[in-house]
Amino acid sequence: MAVRALVFDVFGTLVDWRSGIAAAFRAGGVAGDPVELADAWRARYEPILAEVNEGSRAWGNFDELHLATLDDLLAEQGLDLPVEERRRLVHAWHRLDPWPDVRAGLEALRGRRITATLSNGHLALLVDLARHGDLRFDCLLSAELARAYKPAPEVYRTAARLLGVEAGELMLVAAHPWDLKGARRAGLRTAFVDRPLEYGPGSAARADPAAEESVGDLLELSERLA
Amino acid sequence: MAVRALVFDVFGTLVDWRSGIAAAFRAGGVAGDPVELADAWRARYEPILAEVNEGSRAWGNFDELHLATLDDLLAEQGLDLPVEERRRLVHAWHRLDPWPDVRAGLEALRGRRITATLSNGHLALLVDLARHGDLRFDCLLSAELARAYKPAPEVYRTAARLLGVEAGELMLVAAHPWDLKGARRAGLRTAFVDRPLEYGPGSAARADPAAEESVGDLLELSERLA
Repeated sequence: MAVRALVFDVFGTLVDWRSGIAAAFRAGGVAGDPVELADAWRARYEPILAEVNEGSRAWGNFDELHLATLDDLLAEQGLDLPVEERRRLVHAWHRLDPWPDVRAGLEALRGRRITATLSNGHLALLVDLARHGDLRFDCLLSAELARAYKPAPEVYRTAARLLGVEAGELMLVAAHPWDLKGARRAGLRTAFVDRPLEYGPGSAARADPAAEESVGDLLELSERLA
Repeated sequence: MAVRALVFDVFGTLVDWRSGIAAAFRAGGVAGDPVELADAWRARYEPILAEVNEGSRAWGNFDELHLATLDDLLAEQGLDLPVEERRRLVHAWHRLDPWPDVRAGLEALRGRRITATLSNGHLALLVDLARHGDLRFDCLLSAELARAYKPAPEVYRTAARLLGVEAGELMLVAAHPWDLKGARRAGLRTAFVDRPLEYGPGSAARADPAAEESVGDLLELSERLA
């Protein structure tokens, strides 16, 4: 079965959230190490999504969840920030820079296959990120359209249904083995893209031996799919 | 309240369905006048969407509805076509050319506002049309995401919700007064774009005095929204 369409994870895979969020903490003069604050904020991401998927928390989009996790983080650190400053920090997730290969890599891949995002971030956030980074996709897809978060299988299956392809004709491109594993469980093909700087120069090495493709960047993936 | 985002109707407003569908009938050597067949097929569009919105027909995407209306049309005309030929005609709706101003007009408008489709056509169909015509949007939105067809108000409201804007910050751009009226009923702003050739050189004149903007093409709209 041929790969007819590619869907891309966004945070960490296409955009560098850590530098952008650290810069936002720095710009706001928030007490503490801005990079540590960014990491600590991001660390609250998977637990809160799991709460939504398990039904112990009502559906919320990324702006709502980022605000909730920021509030928790600030309380834990004994920090207080005005509401408008918290909103500014939440909005920083809308203006993250792509990794250097992404703009050209997406364009090369779009010449070969249908391309779409498949992010846990909501559509309005993805629109802002795509505009900010001048990233062109054929279509933006989000977990929001399935009202469940990755790695729930319905997110991946909803993407295949909306793109009009079989799950086995759809390939997820992501830097995170947990996401790729979720995609495979839903019947998708998978490509691992290494983002060794997602957590800075000291990031733990990652790999996904079960992925059909493993590449260093999107241009390499485009060559592989030629 | 400023217009923050624009959503575009697609069939008739951005792409010339009549020439493309007539060409598909002609290419297939179907008996009868190809343009009349195209018009007769399109005439079955509003009634079948109304059946879905009223609940007398189960949800179907445009490929399914186009096949159903084609079957009816052929039966009425006493024509029989093999299944693969019917599929080819249904697929012709995926490869329609845009009107001459559309590619550049969308690009100009995307520089000023967030842009998205808002079509009754399903996402997979819109992906194919955007790729075929090299049309760039920030995002593709479809009635499919609301599981109701325009002019049902939830279609327009779903678009505003997904784009993260108020209904009063969203403007529908369309050539069809019934669509614009539906959008206004849902609280959206409206722009009428004249497509005098939608039904060929003898098309009945259209206008929408209630629309906030009335333009001859998308480049003129871009100037108005400067």
